[in-house]
Amino acid sequence: MVAHSTGGVVLSLASKRRSIRRYRRDSINIGDVLYAIKAALQAPSGANMQPWRFVVVVDPKMKVRLREVCEEWEKRFHESPTLPAWFREWLRRRGITWRKDFLTDAPVLVAVAAYKKAPYARESTWLAIGYLLLALEERGLASLTYTPPNPRRVAAILGIPEDYTLETIIPVGLPGEDKAKEPRMSLREAVYLDSWGKQLPEGVEG
Amino acid sequence: MVAHSTGGVVLSLASKRRSIRRYRRDSINIGDVLYAIKAALQAPSGANMQPWRFVVVVDPKMKVRLREVCEEWEKRFHESPTLPAWFREWLRRRGITWRKDFLTDAPVLVAVAAYKKAPYARESTWLAIGYLLLALEERGLASLTYTPPNPRRVAAILGIPEDYTLETIIPVGLPGEDKAKEPRMSLREAVYLDSWGKQLPEGVEG
Repeated sequence: MVAHSTGGVVLSLASKRRSIRRYRRDSINIGDVLYAIKAALQAPSGANMQPWRFVVVVDPKMKVRLREVCEEWEKRFHESPTLPAWFREWLRRRGITWRKDFLTDAPVLVAVAAYKKAPYARESTWLAIGYLLLALEERGLASLTYTPPNPRRVAAILGIPEDYTLETIIPVGLPGEDKAKEPRMSLREAVYLDSWGKQLPEGVEG
Repeated sequence: MVAHSTGGVVLSLASKRRSIRRYRRDSINIGDVLYAIKAALQAPSGANMQPWRFVVVVDPKMKVRLREVCEEWEKRFHESPTLPAWFREWLRRRGITWRKDFLTDAPVLVAVAAYKKAPYARESTWLAIGYLLLALEERGLASLTYTPPNPRRVAAILGIPEDYTLETIIPVGLPGEDKAKEPRMSLREAVYLDSWGKQLPEGVEG
């Protein structure tokens, strides 16, 4: 098994990108956001149905409304006694609370909706979100795939029709924090050869 | 709204990539496939659970077994009287039948599994698949996100445990067909500003 490795742009962008929760309020070039959406629109989808729609939110009033309805439900979620202990601890360590400042701090929010009746709508839409994140990173823009705890309520505020699901709201802007990348698994931890549990040969790094 | 546009690597890779169903049998450098998986491993995921696992299949016998069980169910699917007429026509135009030659022709198959109990396991895994496809394209490798009609049966052949779902099998190799890109929506068709239905200003191209 020959497995020599050289770097590349995609790996470099993927490695550099971090999920950013604090944003500077500085405005950004909306053309950079549209560039990233343009890349997302090129993604493959089930039967090429292109089930995704994007709502680019720049209106401060809309951002405030979105934040209010998200935080109302985030409070319930964070205070819920059924939240697993490990997850409560995971959130605490990262300083993640019910407050979602990024929904009003970030100069742009990109809400992504998926057409329910398309085949593999959710899968296709998230694949396209992968394209989007890398293209935002290429333009030096920070992002986060925030999934509201109450997508139906939030979708209604944006006017998203019933036959679409709101999949995520992605704040986009300049990072207001400098954080380390969360650790990732190595190739040998996450990849098997030919069947489950059969490890790659030692020394393999792609 | 300033929205000037310049090109970029991500958009270029995204635009060039096509879903390829015919593969040359020529072998490829497995290091290129591992490079792409390495990029996928850098994707964000719910609570950083990294719910994805990859099974890289190069063994010809395993490929034959996978193809057999997929085609058995593909036949049922393609011959099913409940298949919508529009979809039957969509398949016919593209010459897509129950035969899945790519499962044995492509030198490498990448099966992707997702850990069911992780938060947003499916979403995270498909986002990572977006990274994977762009990185394969960067290395000049063709790919297809093939979703078997009987994922549970196929997962069993690969030894994938019950608490994982098989999300896709991605054939990877050199393209054996030269096909045009399926058309995509424009920015103005797929993107709204501030709320659903409100179009971007005329002339905007990101």
